[in-house]
Parts: sequence; structure tokens; C-alpha cells
Amino acid sequence: MDLRIFLVGFGNVGRAFSALLKDRVASILCSSGVNLKLAAVATRSKGTACHDEGLEISHLLESERITGRVDSSGQKGVLVGKPVVDMIEGLDFDVLVECSSPDLERGEPATSYIMMALDKGKDVVTSNKGPLFHNYHILSEIASQRKASFLFEGTVMTGTPVFSLFRRCLIGSRVLRIEGVLNGTSNFILDMMKRGSSFERALMEVQRRAYSEPDPFLDIDGWDSASKASIIAQVLMDAPFTPFSEISIEGIRTLDPDLFIRADRMAGSVRLICRVEKQADSYAISVKPEILPSNHPLCSVSGITNGALFMTDTIGEICITGAGAGPLQTAHALLMDILSLQGNFSRR
Amino acid sequence: MDLRIFLVGFGNVGRAFSALLKDRVASILCSSGVNLKLAAVATRSKGTACHDEGLEISHLLESERITGRVDSSGQKGVLVGKPVVDMIEGLDFDVLVECSSPDLERGEPATSYIMMALDKGKDVVTSNKGPLFHNYHILSEIASQRKASFLFEGTVMTGTPVFSLFRRCLIGSRVLRIEGVLNGTSNFILDMMKRGSSFERALMEVQRRAYSEPDPFLDIDGWDSASKASIIAQVLMDAPFTPFSEISIEGIRTLDPDLFIRADRMAGSVRLICRVEKQADSYAISVKPEILPSNHPLCSVSGITNGALFMTDTIGEICITGAGAGPLQTAHALLMDILSLQGNFSRR
Repeated sequence: MDLRIFLVGFGNVGRAFSALLKDRVASILCSSGVNLKLAAVATRSKGTACHDEGLEISHLLESERITGRVDSSGQKGVLVGKPVVDMIEGLDFDVLVECSSPDLERGEPATSYIMMALDKGKDVVTSNKGPLFHNYHILSEIASQRKASFLFEGTVMTGTPVFSLFRRCLIGSRVLRIEGVLNGTSNFILDMMKRGSSFERALMEVQRRAYSEPDPFLDIDGWDSASKASIIAQVLMDAPFTPFSEISIEGIRTLDPDLFIRADRMAGSVRLICRVEKQADSYAISVKPEILPSNHPLCSVSGITNGALFMTDTIGEICITGAGAGPLQTAHALLMDILSLQGNFSRR
Repeated sequence: MDLRIFLVGFGNVGRAFSALLKDRVASILCSSGVNLKLAAVATRSKGTACHDEGLEISHLLESERITGRVDSSGQKGVLVGKPVVDMIEGLDFDVLVECSSPDLERGEPATSYIMMALDKGKDVVTSNKGPLFHNYHILSEIASQRKASFLFEGTVMTGTPVFSLFRRCLIGSRVLRIEGVLNGTSNFILDMMKRGSSFERALMEVQRRAYSEPDPFLDIDGWDSASKASIIAQVLMDAPFTPFSEISIEGIRTLDPDLFIRADRMAGSVRLICRVEKQADSYAISVKPEILPSNHPLCSVSGITNGALFMTDTIGEICITGAGAGPLQTAHALLMDILSLQGNFSRR
């Protein structure tokens, strides 16, 4: 069977996803009988393109590399030029893969794109935090009404299972409390500072390696962490949307240098820790640099790695750590979400 | 709908599972519409009992506590006294929950029980390592032929997701290499020795707390760890069955005391580490005490906790740590496996 993918966004993640799709399409067809086709690519600044039989991904990547646009590859049969919303509305496809540029302030236009696709009863897969942070409950309600799947493992911890861990593995378990190291950039900076670097040099290094968000203040001032903690709280703890103004956020821009000396003395580490705790009838969400002792499961979460510690009502504490950043990892997260749409992909 | 459970074994795990079932049955019915019924209990040394409408679990637990038997509760309509195999053969049920006494040497009689149930096309859930270690490939083949589910999350890491993590979350990912702390008893002993205890005192303490296997040599000499490493290798890496004689096994009974001094000097920990590595056309499985440096993800896996580090071909390294022992945790693992048999239990 064919599965037609509508890709929104062709930045680092969109390109990495397309390249991964090209690499994997044959082996996925062989192992599962599902033929993944890139039916359309839509962007706001690089044009749009679609093809009934699926776009030729190598041409698309090459043309974007040279011209900066997706509508110039000259593939036979390719239609170009319509606005994104018209394409979502008008085209036939099976799954929308949303990775347009992030907007933590409002979650737009991604929220509108996702809503349109779900409203059509189409499955949606995204790595975009904005729509989840602002509109998880609304989007998930629409998905449920329209019997569509809405998956977003790539939004937090870049494909290291968090949401599917509870939905598909720890079935019937409730999350009572969360601690997490959810921002790779600030964790990388803290590790460099532990080894004696200044904050400024560490920030330059992490930007040079392109780990950070385009606006590094989102990382270092704790906004990215706060949005992820809130997403986990909404999805796994049924917390309502909590605006930034009601989250206690402290970043790593102005740290007491003494913190690293004290951490060193106890063989611990300074980490930017997100916490979610359920209180009587509310949820306390916070982001704050803390010293973790050496026996804390998140102490060894180093560099751009992420980690989350969950207190469950069934088997106690569970901790999972893994990839925290990177377009390729995010692309894998999107592809795994797509594969999980097909029950029959799952190995026995 | 009713889901009729056939429970084999009424030791620590069987009793904990029954008690958990009793506690959860109402909330599961309410949240999913599935009515879990304990249709039968069969043991080799405590008798057998079954009831068309489901056994009264509190009577069963009480009668076993007083008389040591499951066939003496005097519940109306209860049939007692048939051999286990006749009951599996003759009774109608939906899922076999196998937690009879462990036998790492041959995996019997559990393997036969499981095989009979799968052959009837019935789903099987187990926490019993023996059948998995010796006969995973055979049992999984029968399950596949008979379109039955065969789940065993409780065999390794006591319900902390390992198998479902790859089958249901990291879909399409291959495991290239594994490191694990898979035996809670030896890990608890190593932690006590780190704090200055002798091996003998630590062993007595862990036995007093009833964490260890009935034969503690299975834990401390590495056999339990080796069987679990082999199970993971078979299930997640397609390794063939590897007999103990072909696994390199070193336990913790005669440790060089200098090991702890060296570990302390580098702020590390001594852990009994299982490794599985795929080589050209074979698999190297080993169990050995090692010093892990403080930045190793398994260094902080303390006490009876377990942990496993997987190198994947998609998103790199993933580490998961959690419960490593305990009848209640194992009972939760069995129940989660049962719940996952019903796709509709899964939260959206």
C-alpha cells in the first residue's frame, strides 16, 4: 500500500527527514509492504511542490541546496506555487509531517496546519513544540473526534521515547512526578563550564556546533525547557495548559561560579532541571539550575544528551536518557512516529 | 467484554499478581470496558482451582495463607484437583499468565505450559526467565503461527520497558550493542560492599530482604544476569540461543578488594555488567564485574535497580533504568502486558 506524506517545512529537520526517507523507503517497503511517498512539500519562504506519484527526493534536496527553493527542481508532473493552507485543504494525502519553523510564543502557523489536517481526518506527526505547548488538549481532542492519530515524539527528547513509553509500554501507569534535563544546549554549556570554560565561550561553541535554537536565549534562559516540561505535564499528567508566566523559570545565564566548586566537591554535576509536581488541584512546573549528587540518575546525562525521571504509581521510578538534539535524530523520531501509525510495522 | 485469566503458579509473584488484579479490576473495567476474571489457578504443589464465573480472589489468598493450598477455599462452584496440563488443555480461557517456579537449567515445566496454551491460540504473558532463555525462538514461532500474543516484559528488569520499548516505541530501530546491570541482588551487594560491608554480610542482608533468587548463587555467580542478557540478545538482536557454556560468566563471589578502592578513587562504581556485542556472524555475551566511571549512565544504577544501555542504529544511545526486583513490580509487569493485549486500553 502507498502512504502519501505531506511535508510542511524544509529547514534542517525537513531536509534531514526527506534524506532519511529516501534512504529508508526501499527497506521499509520490503519489511512492511508500505510504500512511503513524499506527495508534497510546502514551505512559507522556499515555495511549494507536489506530485501525484511522489516527488523525487534527491532532485528536491539538490535544487534546494543550489537555489534555496523547493519549487525549482523541474521534475516532470510537479505542481508548484500554491499557499500551504490551500495545499493542505486541496490535496489528498495520508499523513501530515509538520516541521515548520518553531514559534514558542504562539505556536503558529503550525497549529493551524495541524488543525486543518486533523479536521480532514488525516494523521499528523510533528516535531514542533509550539503547537503542543499551546494547544495539545485542543489538537488531541480534534484528533480523537476525527479518529486520526496525532504523534509528536520528536518534540521532547528528540525521539527518545517519552510519550510512547507510557502510551504503549507502561499501559495503565500514571505519572506522579517528573524531573528532567530537557535542553541539550544548556546541558552542553554547563558541562563545558564544569571543565573550566566561561559561559560566553561555551555558548559560542554550542552555536558553532549548531545544537542551539536559532535564538539561543530560548535554551539558556529556560524557555525551551519550560515548554517541554509543560508538554510532558499536559500529555502524561493531564495538566492544563500553563502559560510561561505561571512557570517558575530560572536559566543559566548568570550562575554563581561557586555552584561548580560545590558540585565538584560532591562529585556531582550542575544541571538545568525541569520539575513537574502534581499538587492538590494544580501542577507546579519549574526550571532551575541545581547540583545533582553523583548517585542521581540524571547526574551522568552529559553534553547534549537529555534525560527524564518519572515517578509512576505502578513500578516506581523509571529513568530514560538519550539523544537530546540534532536534525537526524529528529528525523528518525518523525519516521518512527509514521511507522507506528501502521500496527503491522511492529515486530512481534 | 470478559477476559478470562488462567494463572499458573501461586508463589510470591502469583499471589502479588492476584492481589493486584483484585485491586485494579474495577478501575480497569471502568476505563476500558474489559472485565478481568481469574478463571483458574493451577499449581504443582498447592493444588488447582477454577470457576466459570471467576474465582473470588480474596478467598483464594486467605485460604492459601492459612492452609498453603489454593483448592481449599470452599467457594461455591469451584472445581479443584486436575493436573495443570489437563486444565490448560481442557479449560476455556483468554490469556495464560505463567509464573510457576523458575528453572534456569531447562525452563520446564513452564515451557510446556506456554507451548500448550499458544498451540491452542491463546495469548500468553509470563515473568518466567527459563522458557525465554531456552526456547524464545520456538515459542515465538508458535505464537506467530497461531496468531497469539506472547509477552514477557517481567522477565528482564521487572517491568521497566525493554522489549516493548523497541517493539512499540523505537519501531524500525535495530540494537547494535547492549550493556546492562540486570541483577538487582548482586548490584545491592556491590553497593553495600562499596560502603565497607563484607560480601557475606551483604549477602545475608539481601537474603533477609528477600530480593535474591531462592538459590542466591544464581544471582551472585552471574547466571541470572547471563540468562537475561541472552534473552535480550535473542529478542532484540535476533541472536540464536546461546547455552551458558558459551557465555563468558564471572560473578561477584571472589572480588579483589582493591577494585572498590580504585572505583572510589575515580568516583565510580563496581557493577556486574552484562554485555552483548554482535560480531561478524556471531554474538559475544559476557557477564563481569567492572568499574564504571562516574559519567557512565549505568554508574548511578544503585541498589536493586536495574539498567540497560542500548546502542541503536537510529538515534544512537538510549539508556533506561528502573525497578529490578520485587513481586509487586513483577505483578505490575504482568498486568501491563495483559492490558497491552487490548489495543483499546492505550491512552491517546
